[in-house]
Amino acid sequence: MSVQCTTLYVELGDRRYPIYIGPNLLHATTLLGDAITGRQIVVVTNETIAPLYLDAVLRQLPAEALVSSVILPDGEQYKTWQTLGDIFDQVLRARHNRSTTFVALGGGVVGDITGFAAACYQRGVNFVQVPTTLLAQVDSSVGGKTAVNHPLGKNMIGAFYQPNAVIIDTATLSTLGDREYAAGLAEVVKYGLIFDADFHAWLGANRVGLRSRDANVLSYAIKRSCEIKAEVVAADERESGLRAILNLGHTFGHAIETHMGYGAWLHGEAVAAGMVMAVRLSAMRHSVSDGLVTELEHLLTDLGLPIWAPEGMSSNTFIDLMSLDKKVIDGRMRFVLLAALGEAVVVDDVRQDELHALIDR
Amino acid sequence: MSVQCTTLYVELGDRRYPIYIGPNLLHATTLLGDAITGRQIVVVTNETIAPLYLDAVLRQLPAEALVSSVILPDGEQYKTWQTLGDIFDQVLRARHNRSTTFVALGGGVVGDITGFAAACYQRGVNFVQVPTTLLAQVDSSVGGKTAVNHPLGKNMIGAFYQPNAVIIDTATLSTLGDREYAAGLAEVVKYGLIFDADFHAWLGANRVGLRSRDANVLSYAIKRSCEIKAEVVAADERESGLRAILNLGHTFGHAIETHMGYGAWLHGEAVAAGMVMAVRLSAMRHSVSDGLVTELEHLLTDLGLPIWAPEGMSSNTFIDLMSLDKKVIDGRMRFVLLAALGEAVVVDDVRQDELHALIDR
Repeated sequence: MSVQCTTLYVELGDRRYPIYIGPNLLHATTLLGDAITGRQIVVVTNETIAPLYLDAVLRQLPAEALVSSVILPDGEQYKTWQTLGDIFDQVLRARHNRSTTFVALGGGVVGDITGFAAACYQRGVNFVQVPTTLLAQVDSSVGGKTAVNHPLGKNMIGAFYQPNAVIIDTATLSTLGDREYAAGLAEVVKYGLIFDADFHAWLGANRVGLRSRDANVLSYAIKRSCEIKAEVVAADERESGLRAILNLGHTFGHAIETHMGYGAWLHGEAVAAGMVMAVRLSAMRHSVSDGLVTELEHLLTDLGLPIWAPEGMSSNTFIDLMSLDKKVIDGRMRFVLLAALGEAVVVDDVRQDELHALIDR
Repeated sequence: MSVQCTTLYVELGDRRYPIYIGPNLLHATTLLGDAITGRQIVVVTNETIAPLYLDAVLRQLPAEALVSSVILPDGEQYKTWQTLGDIFDQVLRARHNRSTTFVALGGGVVGDITGFAAACYQRGVNFVQVPTTLLAQVDSSVGGKTAVNHPLGKNMIGAFYQPNAVIIDTATLSTLGDREYAAGLAEVVKYGLIFDADFHAWLGANRVGLRSRDANVLSYAIKRSCEIKAEVVAADERESGLRAILNLGHTFGHAIETHMGYGAWLHGEAVAAGMVMAVRLSAMRHSVSDGLVTELEHLLTDLGLPIWAPEGMSSNTFIDLMSLDKKVIDGRMRFVLLAALGEAVVVDDVRQDELHALIDR
C-alpha cells in the first residue's frame, strides 16, 4: 500500500503544525498515533463516516490509551450548541481529563464542532484534524477556525483554535458523494481567484480530471490549496486583515445557507453561487472583466456547481442576513472582491443600490 | 466624590491590560467608557447586582452606542451551558456584531460566564471585567480563566481569555452580604499562604479590620492580592506550571462544591475548608508545622469561614470527585501543597492512604 506523503507546515511560531497529504494515510501509517500526546483520546465522527474509517483510525491509536468514540448525526443542521453540549456530556461521563486529545474524523461539520469542543474542554486540549471530505481537506481543517451555527447566523459561536496536526488521506475522497465532492471544488476554485492566477488557469485546463477525481490532478489541487491556505493563515491567524480574503463568496453564501436552512444547500454550493456574485460585483466595478464572470460560470458549471442564488431570494433578504455577518464593522458591511484575477481585496464601500442591481437583475 | 485610583498591569505582551482599583470608580470616572472599543456593548449582570449598579455603568457608556443588557439569575447553579446559550440568543437577537465589547458586571459567576461568552461570540470579542464581589475583585476577574460548570465538574467547559481591562470599585463591597464577603477573604488568605509570608502575617494582624471591612485595610488587601495574581498569571498564563499554585485548596474545594450541589456552599467557603485540608496534608508531610494549621484555622474562623469539609463526605467521595479534576495528568492526581509558609508546590505523589488518613480522621 502506498505511503507517499507530502508534508506542509502552517507557520505559527510555537504553534506551528504539519499538514500531511497522501493516499491511504489512515491505513498505511502511524501518523495519527504520533500526533497524539497523552494517553486519552476522543474520536469524534459521524454516522456516515464511522462505518467507513473509524476502525482504521482506532487501529492507529496506542493500545493502552483510554479511547472514546462520539458518533454525531450527519449534517450541517447538527452543527449546533446542543450537539456540542452532548459531546461534552459523553466525554465527561467517560472521565476524560485535560491530557485528552480530540480527533476530528469527518468533513467540515465534524471538524468545526470537534475543534471548538477541543478549544473549550477543560479550557483547551490538543486536537488533530483528519478530514475526509474535499471541502474539509482543502479548507476547513486548516487554519483553526472552529464554530457551531446559531439559528440567527452561521459560525456565530466559536474560537480560533489550531490543531496539532492535519492528516489528509486523499483516498477517502473515493467514497464521497458527487454533490459533496463538487462542493469541495468550490473552495479549490476560490484559491485560484483570490491568490494565484496560474492555479486558476491550471484548474480550468484540468476541469475534466477534477470532475473525474483523477488522483494526480486531485493531489496537486489539494496540495496547492493547502499551501495557499497555510500561507494566508500564517500571515493573519485571527483575521485582522489578509485572512478575510478567504471569504470570497462567503458573505453571499452564508446568507443563502441561513435563508435556506442549514443543510439544504451544501456550504460549497452556496459559496459557488456566492463567488459568482462577488466576481460579478467586481466586474460591475470594472476591476475584472465581464469575461471572467462568464468563464467562472462555465468552470463552476462544468464542476457540477450552482452559479445562481436560490430563486425568490431578494436583495432585501440578502442585505438583512448579511448585516449580521461577522465581517460587519461598526455597521459597515464588508465584501471580498477581486482587484484582479488572483488578487482579492476587502471593501466596505459597496452601496445598497449596487447590491440591488447585482441581486435583483 | 473620591477618584483615588491605583493602576496595576497584567504583563502579557501585546495583551497587557490594566487593573484599576479604587473607591467609587463606577460613579466618578469614565474608565469604563475608555476601556471599550467599538460602538456596540453588551452588559451582562445578574438580578441582584442590576438594581444596584447597572444604571451607573450604563451612564458611563457612549451615548451613540448600541447597548444591550443581559440580566442573569443570581447563583453558581446558573453558571451553565444553558445560561450561556441564552446569552448568545439575546445578543444575536439584538444583532451585535464582532466589534461588540462585553462588560461583566458582578461576581465570579457573572465574570466567568461573560468572559467565556466573549471568548466564543463570533470567535472572540473584547471584554471588560467590573467585579462587584470581593472574590471576583481579588481572584476571578484577573487572569483570563473563564468557564461554565457541568453537572460532572466545576469549570469543565471554558477558555483562557483575557479581559481588556479590570475595573475594581471597592465601594461596591459595602453592599455585599456577610457570607459572600467572607468567601472572598478566603482567596485573600490564599495569596499569603502560597506566595508571601509577610502578607500572611499582615492579614493575621489585621483580621479585625478585614472582618469589619475597614476601607484602608481592604484597599491594601485587594491591591496586594491583585499584584500577586497578576505576577503569577504573567509568568504562566495557561497554567502549564506556576499558575497551578493559585489552586491551593481548590481541588478539595471543588469536590465539596460538586458534592453539595452548586450554590450550596459558596466557592470561597469550599476553598477555605479545602485550604485547611491542603495545609494539614503539608503538615502531615512535615513541610510546615502543625502550628500553622492551627493558626490558619483560627484566622479563617475569625474571618467567618468554615474550616471543616461537610459532615458525611468520606475520603472515597473526595477521591472519586477529585479524579476528574483538571489538574489530573495521565491518571495522577496533583495537589497544591505548601513547601513552606509563602511557598506553594504542586505534587503528584500523594498516596491514597494519606488522603484517607487526612479526610477520615
